[in-house]
Amino acid sequence: MSNPSLVLNKIDDISFETYESPVISDPHEVIVEVKKTGICGSDIHYYAHGKIGPFVLTKPMVLGHESSGVVSKVGEKVTTLKVGDNVAIEPGVPSRLSDEYKSGHYNLCPHMCFAATPNSTEGEPNPPGTLCRYYKCPEDFLVKLPDHVSLELGALVEPLTVGVHASKLAKITLGDKVVVFGAGPVGLLAAAAAKSFGATAIIIVDIFDAKLEMAKKIGVATHSFNSKTEGNFEKLLAKFDNVKPTVVLECTGAAPCINMGVQVLSAGGRFVQIGNAPGPVSFPITEFATKELTLYGSFRYGYDDYKSSVTILDRNYAKGKENAPIDFESLITHRFKFQDAVKAYDLVRGGNGCVKCIIDGPEN
Amino acid sequence: MSNPSLVLNKIDDISFETYESPVISDPHEVIVEVKKTGICGSDIHYYAHGKIGPFVLTKPMVLGHESSGVVSKVGEKVTTLKVGDNVAIEPGVPSRLSDEYKSGHYNLCPHMCFAATPNSTEGEPNPPGTLCRYYKCPEDFLVKLPDHVSLELGALVEPLTVGVHASKLAKITLGDKVVVFGAGPVGLLAAAAAKSFGATAIIIVDIFDAKLEMAKKIGVATHSFNSKTEGNFEKLLAKFDNVKPTVVLECTGAAPCINMGVQVLSAGGRFVQIGNAPGPVSFPITEFATKELTLYGSFRYGYDDYKSSVTILDRNYAKGKENAPIDFESLITHRFKFQDAVKAYDLVRGGNGCVKCIIDGPEN
Amino acid sequence: MSNPSLVLNKIDDISFETYESPVISDPHEVIVEVKKTGICGSDIHYYAHGKIGPFVLTKPMVLGHESSGVVSKVGEKVTTLKVGDNVAIEPGVPSRLSDEYKSGHYNLCPHMCFAATPNSTEGEPNPPGTLCRYYKCPEDFLVKLPDHVSLELGALVEPLTVGVHASKLAKITLGDKVVVFGAGPVGLLAAAAAKSFGATAIIIVDIFDAKLEMAKKIGVATHSFNSKTEGNFEKLLAKFDNVKPTVVLECTGAAPCINMGVQVLSAGGRFVQIGNAPGPVSFPITEFATKELTLYGSFRYGYDDYKSSVTILDRNYAKGKENAPIDFESLITHRFKFQDAVKAYDLVRGGNGCVKCIIDGPEN
Amino acid sequence: MSNPSLVLNKIDDISFETYESPVISDPHEVIVEVKKTGICGSDIHYYAHGKIGPFVLTKPMVLGHESSGVVSKVGEKVTTLKVGDNVAIEPGVPSRLSDEYKSGHYNLCPHMCFAATPNSTEGEPNPPGTLCRYYKCPEDFLVKLPDHVSLELGALVEPLTVGVHASKLAKITLGDKVVVFGAGPVGLLAAAAAKSFGATAIIIVDIFDAKLEMAKKIGVATHSFNSKTEGNFEKLLAKFDNVKPTVVLECTGAAPCINMGVQVLSAGGRFVQIGNAPGPVSFPITEFATKELTLYGSFRYGYDDYKSSVTILDRNYAKGKENAPIDFESLITHRFKFQDAVKAYDLVRGGNGCVKCIIDGPEN
Repeated sequence: MSNPSLVLNKIDDISFETYESPVISDPHEVIVEVKKTGICGSDIHYYAHGKIGPFVLTKPMVLGHESSGVVSKVGEKVTTLKVGDNVAIEPGVPSRLSDEYKSGHYNLCPHMCFAATPNSTEGEPNPPGTLCRYYKCPEDFLVKLPDHVSLELGALVEPLTVGVHASKLAKITLGDKVVVFGAGPVGLLAAAAAKSFGATAIIIVDIFDAKLEMAKKIGVATHSFNSKTEGNFEKLLAKFDNVKPTVVLECTGAAPCINMGVQVLSAGGRFVQIGNAPGPVSFPITEFATKELTLYGSFRYGYDDYKSSVTILDRNYAKGKENAPIDFESLITHRFKFQDAVKAYDLVRGGNGCVKCIIDGPEN
Repeated sequence: MSNPSLVLNKIDDISFETYESPVISDPHEVIVEVKKTGICGSDIHYYAHGKIGPFVLTKPMVLGHESSGVVSKVGEKVTTLKVGDNVAIEPGVPSRLSDEYKSGHYNLCPHMCFAATPNSTEGEPNPPGTLCRYYKCPEDFLVKLPDHVSLELGALVEPLTVGVHASKLAKITLGDKVVVFGAGPVGLLAAAAAKSFGATAIIIVDIFDAKLEMAKKIGVATHSFNSKTEGNFEKLLAKFDNVKPTVVLECTGAAPCINMGVQVLSAGGRFVQIGNAPGPVSFPITEFATKELTLYGSFRYGYDDYKSSVTILDRNYAKGKENAPIDFESLITHRFKFQDAVKAYDLVRGGNGCVKCIIDGPEN
Repeated sequence: MSNPSLVLNKIDDISFETYESPVISDPHEVIVEVKKTGICGSDIHYYAHGKIGPFVLTKPMVLGHESSGVVSKVGEKVTTLKVGDNVAIEPGVPSRLSDEYKSGHYNLCPHMCFAATPNSTEGEPNPPGTLCRYYKCPEDFLVKLPDHVSLELGALVEPLTVGVHASKLAKITLGDKVVVFGAGPVGLLAAAAAKSFGATAIIIVDIFDAKLEMAKKIGVATHSFNSKTEGNFEKLLAKFDNVKPTVVLECTGAAPCINMGVQVLSAGGRFVQIGNAPGPVSFPITEFATKELTLYGSFRYGYDDYKSSVTILDRNYAKGKENAPIDFESLITHRFKFQDAVKAYDLVRGGNGCVKCIIDGPEN
Repeated sequence: MSNPSLVLNKIDDISFETYESPVISDPHEVIVEVKKTGICGSDIHYYAHGKIGPFVLTKPMVLGHESSGVVSKVGEKVTTLKVGDNVAIEPGVPSRLSDEYKSGHYNLCPHMCFAATPNSTEGEPNPPGTLCRYYKCPEDFLVKLPDHVSLELGALVEPLTVGVHASKLAKITLGDKVVVFGAGPVGLLAAAAAKSFGATAIIIVDIFDAKLEMAKKIGVATHSFNSKTEGNFEKLLAKFDNVKPTVVLECTGAAPCINMGVQVLSAGGRFVQIGNAPGPVSFPITEFATKELTLYGSFRYGYDDYKSSVTILDRNYAKGKENAPIDFESLITHRFKFQDAVKAYDLVRGGNGCVKCIIDGPEN
């Protein structure tokens, strides 16, 4: 069977190619027909710059790693899924023998094979992305979508899971007061995760009012703060009636946010770094130590995190869309057909108020 | 009874004063006759600069907070100690009602009363230091010294406990590989704590070979590394046969050490910041996040830490000095009579190869 | 001021007495005017049997320990409350010096002074209960009730906190599947706590259908199971689509429930024992070990648990009664005036479908 | 190549058989030439009774699962071992896809393939035991033995790891006071593990003085207690100067021991059940709950436990046999050639003061 795919050849050069479909070679593998794929900031970064940190594009690569689809074929030992099931696709598969995998931290596995992340080793192919018709994946890296969770919502599972992982690192539970820096897709979904784990007050911080409005609209924040126009950390605290927050989820990588996070946290507070910074940042290490804060570096996600995201979505929509505490669907501001995927990439690259853009799978 | 005391009046001005002895006002209080007191870097800082961060000396203050002594008098409800017991004195007493105290983190209590730490509030006295004859303390902030632990070793309990607290934050256990930055008293005792909690390999890093020699001599490090003369983090790793360490205990506050610590740690590693920096440091936040490191700020010590230190010393000397795994006594490089305390302060202030200097209590 | 009080003199003998009001003797104390008090099974046990385990009534004792009220007077150092505030009263105050208190486990303090729990030491009075007009308490054992939480709901805080404590021991979080044995007040409130901590499926087990109906009515259980009429643990599992639960909250102390709990739990599951048994029970220790279950003994509550309960109630009613996920108020099936308190006790003693019975404070 | 093997055919029937050697079929597999194998109580149980709980012998099975050996051949992707390396063999390999494996708890994997444990499913072979010449194992279930650890000590790794796993469950650390019930091989090695994790006082309990003597001789216990001749739990406590222990490691499965364990533990104490009981035991559930004890079921071992055992042995012998804190070698009371293996089994079956009996691999 043919497998139409969206391929990033090099900077500024995306094309449609048709490859052979993947073939099941291990009895626990599954072929998924991809239906919905979100565009991630990292996709755009490769498109515009050809690399992210140590990951450099040196040969053509199929794009996409935020996808859902329908099970099309199953290996002979697959027991957890059947043809026709809707699934969210976890894009990174680690070594089955690594200590990181065995201990639940497979995101740290040095042998990770992650969709649409360049492998610059000569002679080795890039891990295929999900922007194609047929994608092959082991059964245990697929999570079945329950009835309440549409395929479109399934495409949000990947970025939501980034926030889930961070929330677990911070052990967010009933009663936590959380500050989220950054109101882009990652920050909004991190706030959604924090709320789902029991945070009772969430303030979201950004420098664009429109983004802060989105946070309020979809119901993930109890408060918002424009750090450009509303002042310093004391003003931020005033919004919480001067009760210091217990958790910071930092999704910007911007030094002013990181410093404000350290300033506002209560003694003993937990700080999760999710966002990337282009280089080293100026960090108030002594204030950090004197308050006995804990800083958790957060990278992608690991054991059980994907399932938690699907649980969050399932519970959120259990009483119907109209009663959903969080309006995840409004995050999806743009939708494109597969054949218009390049337009989608150009739209996201240009900004234009896009929060999350979804591309359909190839039509049959 | 009269209470001869060593008083810091202002920068560069120490004098002997005789005050009234403290009087038991709560039935759980104890009067300790102070016998041995170590000089801490913070004492010297107040002597030379009159302040540390927010703590500013505005009125005379009795010095000293690393002390042991003998129980001289007990309140009527005291049940855990009796007159004549040797004790290590915990210098900070928090509010009994604070959440920090209730939850085991009393080092973070905003109402902490800590010996020889200035209280700049007008009208309120400075918390008395321990460089005097009689010092008053609640019974539960004294730890009885067992037979194997001398009063002189008892004066090491306070700085050792800083390392104990950090080791607990890092959950150091059997098999951990630890890098300690800084081979001054704090670093050496942090390494001793790490070894006591089960670390199987400990590399200590400094820029002075003499300090590194001390670490080897007293038996707290399996390896040493001069970061000035031996090269970068890769050279450091080579000493561990390129097995990345699991824990960093950072006792210098120096940006190059902090950065080297992030570089050498294994993914998922734990980093404890103990040392103070004079200002913000340049911090590799993205490398930190990508490796999912955890940074624990460490400030003083809390519930049960003092007892752990006494347990460490007791176990270390259980089979006699000649069989002690760690030679704590060699850390004490200088000893002074009470009447020569100013000389002691000047000696430590000048450096001169002093590791830990102990001042006797006033003679009877 | 006079202090009308309800006094248990001995088995079957309750009377009204008027004592002197308590007087503030410590600057952090508060006098509360008691408004609402729930009757607990233990109160009835003392009424009917004169003792519970080691606690034997040997002299008259004011009853009551599940209360809310209004701050009537504050000590001069009280900063967290003011006259007129509505508060939930935490009935047990531990020793401020005990290790248990310092480490957050003050429920285990051997010097606990717990309202309406007999002190059989000769010469020492019983700790006063709360069924009176004026009750004295340190400020940090009172929790202010926010606007959404009525005084009547405030009287539910104590038994709810038993479930909160158990839920924290079991680390219940998003996605847990919980079995609660027992649908009396303790079980119902334990289920409410489990739901509040993120459990996504809760099955409540009892032998009375009426009690199971109550669980459904108030919204704390997704499933119910009558263990007398519906069969063995396999039938119970079938209700969960044969997905084994991760947590058991055992509130009966009955051996068949305890054994069924061990049988149904998934490997690695968590089992919290809340209910008391009259004696030893037959326990499947090898099945327990082979599945690597963890059994947590749960006794009352400790640090921060009371505040968590108030947070649960506040959040539950944040969008108004009509939108509250849990209908706590329907648990209160009976209400009495203070002068009718003996009738209330007799009613509860008789059973009669009473879930929770509330007695008003003495009228002014 | 031929593979001489010791085979249990049925109750009371052991024979030598020669099979074909295993062949590498996965590039991460290793062939080990087995050198030393300990006899476990479970081996004897199958020999005498043909079953343990749900595991029933229905066809011939190669015996042995406590082994060390020398790497004889490696698959083409093996990177962590080379031919000639000495290794300890971990006998159970779980499913690589199971949640239990992914989360570090692979001992709970329902698809575990464990050496010399019968598989009663018709048509499926028994997992081969290690009492043969050539044994096949994935590289990541072999732990290289460092220079200080002999092949004979390597055969103790398996039973030592049972104690390591239990010690980790109980989070044994510096200062813990531990009671070990049972002074057979499992109890002795559990005590060794507890000591290695930092326990400062260990009392071992048995009803045979000779076993208690062994505990003292090899240096794993600071105290011993004969529960048959020395009295009740109060006498036991007296040996600890009435300081209640913090941890119980129960290795007998005997109800009197389990009950004594609950009685002696301090409030908040941790109890690990390692030993099996033939049926349900009478358990003091209310005392357990009132003291807020935690009971951990312990079954075999999981992620990183084998490596911890090798670390313990390596550290123990780092300064030579004469300075070793624990004399592990004295546990090995009997040694047999491979051709005398049946005699070895009969000896152990008869008791006769045997602690651990080691059988050599087949001679070349």
